[in-house]
Amino acid sequence: MRLKFMVAYDGGSFAGWQSQAHGGAVQDLIEAALEKIAGERIVVHGSGRTDSGVHALGQCAHVEVPQGRLDPADWQRALNASLPATIRILRAQKVRGDFHARFDAKGKIYRYEIYTGSVLPPLLVGRVWHEARQLDPALLREAAQMFVGRHDFAAFSANRGGSVTDTHRTITSVGVKIKGPQIHLIFEGEGFLYKMVRMMTGSIIRAAKGQDTIEDLRSRLHTGGPRTNHVAPAAGLYLVRVLY
Amino acid sequence: MRLKFMVAYDGGSFAGWQSQAHGGAVQDLIEAALEKIAGERIVVHGSGRTDSGVHALGQCAHVEVPQGRLDPADWQRALNASLPATIRILRAQKVRGDFHARFDAKGKIYRYEIYTGSVLPPLLVGRVWHEARQLDPALLREAAQMFVGRHDFAAFSANRGGSVTDTHRTITSVGVKIKGPQIHLIFEGEGFLYKMVRMMTGSIIRAAKGQDTIEDLRSRLHTGGPRTNHVAPAAGLYLVRVLY
Repeated sequence: MRLKFMVAYDGGSFAGWQSQAHGGAVQDLIEAALEKIAGERIVVHGSGRTDSGVHALGQCAHVEVPQGRLDPADWQRALNASLPATIRILRAQKVRGDFHARFDAKGKIYRYEIYTGSVLPPLLVGRVWHEARQLDPALLREAAQMFVGRHDFAAFSANRGGSVTDTHRTITSVGVKIKGPQIHLIFEGEGFLYKMVRMMTGSIIRAAKGQDTIEDLRSRLHTGGPRTNHVAPAAGLYLVRVLY
Repeated sequence: MRLKFMVAYDGGSFAGWQSQAHGGAVQDLIEAALEKIAGERIVVHGSGRTDSGVHALGQCAHVEVPQGRLDPADWQRALNASLPATIRILRAQKVRGDFHARFDAKGKIYRYEIYTGSVLPPLLVGRVWHEARQLDPALLREAAQMFVGRHDFAAFSANRGGSVTDTHRTITSVGVKIKGPQIHLIFEGEGFLYKMVRMMTGSIIRAAKGQDTIEDLRSRLHTGGPRTNHVAPAAGLYLVRVLY
C-alpha cells in the first residue's frame, strides 16, 4: 500500500530533511519510526530536501507500507506517537501505486520571513532572518517581481556536485507582504534549485537596502553569472506546500 | 540613575523569572550582564515572577545603575549584546528615583494560548497548551466571564508558603478569541495570585469540555474552596504587559 504523507517540522531541531550518514535528519527519524511500527525497513521518498534550519509546514513524502491491519489514519497516529513532537505527520492518505512524491510534484510554495525591527523578539529566534535595516519597499517589490517567469537561475543557486545540468526554472509568482517590521516573501514555482530561495531572498534584500541595483540583478538573471554570494539564513525559510 | 526595562523572553529556555540559588533564571542572567557592564553588582527588581516555561512579551523591571557615560539606550544595547537572544530588553527608560516595578504596577495582562486541533504543529511546541478536544464555545465564554469582578481566588491559586494572606483580587476583563483550532484567553486584572491564570484557565477548559459545571466553578469562587487541581501547563502562558 502506497501512502502520501504531509509532514511538518521545526527545522532548528534536525540535520535537514535528507538522510545523513550519522542520522539526525527528518527522513532518518521517520524511517526509524516506520521500522519500529512495521518491523522492517521502509524507505521514505520526499518531494525534495530542505537544509538544516529550514522549516516545513507541508513537506510531502511517499512510502510503500505492508498491506495489513493498519489504515492510513493508523499509520499517522502510530508515527506521531513515535516521532519527536517537532516532527508531525499532518496527513496520511492512500495513493495509487505509482505515485512519486518527487517526480509527480508540479510545484512548490516557499515563504521567507524577515524581521526588520531593531530588537528581535525572543520568540522569533530561529524563525526569521533578523535584518535590522531600513528597506525600501518599492525596491523590495521591484526586485522580487524581477524573478517571476522562466529564467536561468545559475547565478542564484548553489552547486551540489553536478547532478543538475539545466539551471532554467519557472517562478510563477513572488508575493510580498509587509506588516510593520515583518516581511514575508512567498515564492511559487514549478521547481527550485539548491539554495535558490535563500539566494533570491539575499539578493532581493541587498537591492532593497540599495547595496545592489535592480539592473545588476537583472543582468545576472540574463547572463547566468556571476553567482551571488548573498545567501539568506536557513532559519527564515519555510516549505509551505508541495503542489501535485 | 533609575531605569525601567521592558523585557521579553522565551520561557522555555530559563528557570523562570525569579533568581535561583543555582542560577539560570532570567533575573540571574540580567544581573550577570549588568555586573559585566557596570563592574559592580546591580539588583534587578521585577514586577513579579513568572514560572519556568511561561513566556514574557512585556515583563517590567527596574534597576539603579551608576550615573555615568551610559544613557538608557546604551544600557539597552550593552545588555542585549551580553544576554542570550532568547532574552531581550525591548525598551529602557529613565524613571523617577522612587519608581518600583512591583509596587507601582497597577495591573497586568496575561494571554493563555490553547490549540485544539488533533495534531499540534511542530512550531507551536512549547508555546501553547495542546488540548485536542471538542470545546463548547458558549460554555468556554460563560466560564471565562464568571471570573470577572472582585472575588476570593483561594480556590484558583496555589500556596507559595504563606506570604499572601488576602486572596481577594479583581479581574477587569477576560477576552476570549477563537480562530479555528486556536483559542486565546486574555486576562486583565489589578493583580494575580501564584498560578492563578493557569488555574483559571484549567477550570475554564474543564467547563468547556463539560467535565465541570459552571455552577461548580461559581461555588468555588464564592466559598473559596475546594482548591482546583486543574492547572494549565506553563508553556501556553504569556505575560503580555504590566500596567503602570
